[in-house]
Amino acid sequence: MDKMLEEAVTAIGTPNIALIKYWGKRDPELNLPTNSSISITLDETLNTKTSVLFSDCFKGDRLFINGEAYDLKDTKNEKTAFTAKVLEHMRGLAGTEAGALIVSKNSFPTAGGLASSASGAATLCYAVSEALELRLAPKELSIVARRISGSACRSISGGFVEWRKGSAADGSDSYAESIANEEHWPEVIDIITLIEDKKKKVSSSEGHRRATETSELYQIRPKIADRRVESMEKAIEQRDFEALAEITMKDSNSLHATALDSFPPILYLNDTSKAVIQRIHELNQHEGATIAAYTFDAGPNAQIITLKKHKNKVIDAIGEIISKDRILVVGQGHGPRPLPSSESLLGDMNLL
Amino acid sequence: MDKMLEEAVTAIGTPNIALIKYWGKRDPELNLPTNSSISITLDETLNTKTSVLFSDCFKGDRLFINGEAYDLKDTKNEKTAFTAKVLEHMRGLAGTEAGALIVSKNSFPTAGGLASSASGAATLCYAVSEALELRLAPKELSIVARRISGSACRSISGGFVEWRKGSAADGSDSYAESIANEEHWPEVIDIITLIEDKKKKVSSSEGHRRATETSELYQIRPKIADRRVESMEKAIEQRDFEALAEITMKDSNSLHATALDSFPPILYLNDTSKAVIQRIHELNQHEGATIAAYTFDAGPNAQIITLKKHKNKVIDAIGEIISKDRILVVGQGHGPRPLPSSESLLGDMNLL
Repeated sequence: MDKMLEEAVTAIGTPNIALIKYWGKRDPELNLPTNSSISITLDETLNTKTSVLFSDCFKGDRLFINGEAYDLKDTKNEKTAFTAKVLEHMRGLAGTEAGALIVSKNSFPTAGGLASSASGAATLCYAVSEALELRLAPKELSIVARRISGSACRSISGGFVEWRKGSAADGSDSYAESIANEEHWPEVIDIITLIEDKKKKVSSSEGHRRATETSELYQIRPKIADRRVESMEKAIEQRDFEALAEITMKDSNSLHATALDSFPPILYLNDTSKAVIQRIHELNQHEGATIAAYTFDAGPNAQIITLKKHKNKVIDAIGEIISKDRILVVGQGHGPRPLPSSESLLGDMNLL
Repeated sequence: MDKMLEEAVTAIGTPNIALIKYWGKRDPELNLPTNSSISITLDETLNTKTSVLFSDCFKGDRLFINGEAYDLKDTKNEKTAFTAKVLEHMRGLAGTEAGALIVSKNSFPTAGGLASSASGAATLCYAVSEALELRLAPKELSIVARRISGSACRSISGGFVEWRKGSAADGSDSYAESIANEEHWPEVIDIITLIEDKKKKVSSSEGHRRATETSELYQIRPKIADRRVESMEKAIEQRDFEALAEITMKDSNSLHATALDSFPPILYLNDTSKAVIQRIHELNQHEGATIAAYTFDAGPNAQIITLKKHKNKVIDAIGEIISKDRILVVGQGHGPRPLPSSESLLGDMNLL
């Protein structure tokens, strides 16, 4: 037993917030996107911790998320399906058939549009690769993470991250890498609001599908987004916050516009989201400069990108709309990293 | 005095509801659209009544709307500006400099997204043309109405009306005409909801401008809308309600998508609008057929296009969301017509 426990790996990883959104797949099986995207990997304020232990003694695999047991044969559940895929792939690379025990815990509500799935999938890939002593490079990890959960591939690296869409049919050139690490421009922060913590009514997978298949306006979005990626690269390189902010807002609006143009339409934003959008435009107008940008993933929760020095102004502005205990200030992070064995989640479980 | 009163003309006209929306102008001065559009002229449930009297004895013009005096020199007010334009144009055609007394009354709230401006402008054009004994044909009236209030040009004719965008720079080929009068398919009705009766936060003029100038997705909307016009013509000709309904919903969504993609974005829909959209899709799914279609102009008020036989089902469905005293069933109308002098609004006023 001791030897097995010594082999356990525990890792921590984080969500990312996209400034240019991933929206639409050219290959839904491999999660190959129709456009490149750019995100900020977040610090560990919101995180996933995952412990992984492989053993030849295990009969089959076991998965626990937030204290709940999941059946890895359940292919309809997104989390079990992607865990099974990662295990299959990584065991293949490692040439082993050992069973896995995986225990994972999110520090924040899942399915609230806060990219818990990206955080979970990136952390899982990293932890499994380490536990099997594969030590995959970020590029390889990013490809695996992409296959199982799309935008998770951006949570593998730190700071500002670009997922280049690639063109190969097998996805071998579709992965994310850091274009400026978290030291480049640490002033940029993300203020996360939790407007709604219910499960999404329309999943982002369904959103991707419906936009590409039914929205006529969507047909030009990939080109528009790719042009924005180029402008965003420059804005990041030159630390031009006004440019970054304007592109961020426009790209978020564009995603939600094509969702609304889908059929049946998807309206992820609600009246509170709408009030935040208006409030941020008023704030920028009042300041005579673009000091904050809203962005929304496939849900109503606003994330406000701003600079550290404007933090209080932004919180005061949106605090008129959203209770302050549902507002969280998050900096930039570095991607998944190992945790000491004292942090192992396996000790929490009565499993062994 | 008697002679003057004999010359007074009173007319009644109505709003129209667009199935394919007018959204974006190639010439904002002349209200020349980027795409053709199709609407239903509504019956007199909601109406504008307008009395017009010209006299050489009048010093200047006087305008009263809903009992309130307006200053025709106020070019910033939409209503006074368009009234002044109509008077100037029509007096030019009639070769007179007589002063005008105009008294107008809407039977419904203005500026609530219920096309009161289309109803008012179409009725005004008709009444002024009759009062000056110009007796302009629908085509000519439609051109004048278009110049002063865009979609008002569709309220000049009855039943299903198409506004062909035209291509001439002076707008001489951009006018609306009936493609199937109100006898062709009278089963089609409009169920109007009054979700919000406040003045619009962003006017439709500003919406047109912002979409054409700032929305990148908008750039392909004119082509999409023109294709829908062709499909809609067929649906109307063949009395194919499912086709009519699906195109109607898609085109409304497309307008609101490009509004959301504008910068700053415009979100005319609110949570109640969203609930109505969802409810109509559920109703259609439950029926196994498309029996109803929502459509929204530049505001949150849903209008539901359906067939007479489904009226109660639709009212029951949306009655779960909107109080029934804010729901109005409206049939198809024939455009402006004269009213007998006993209906004159001039008698209401202590003006002469």
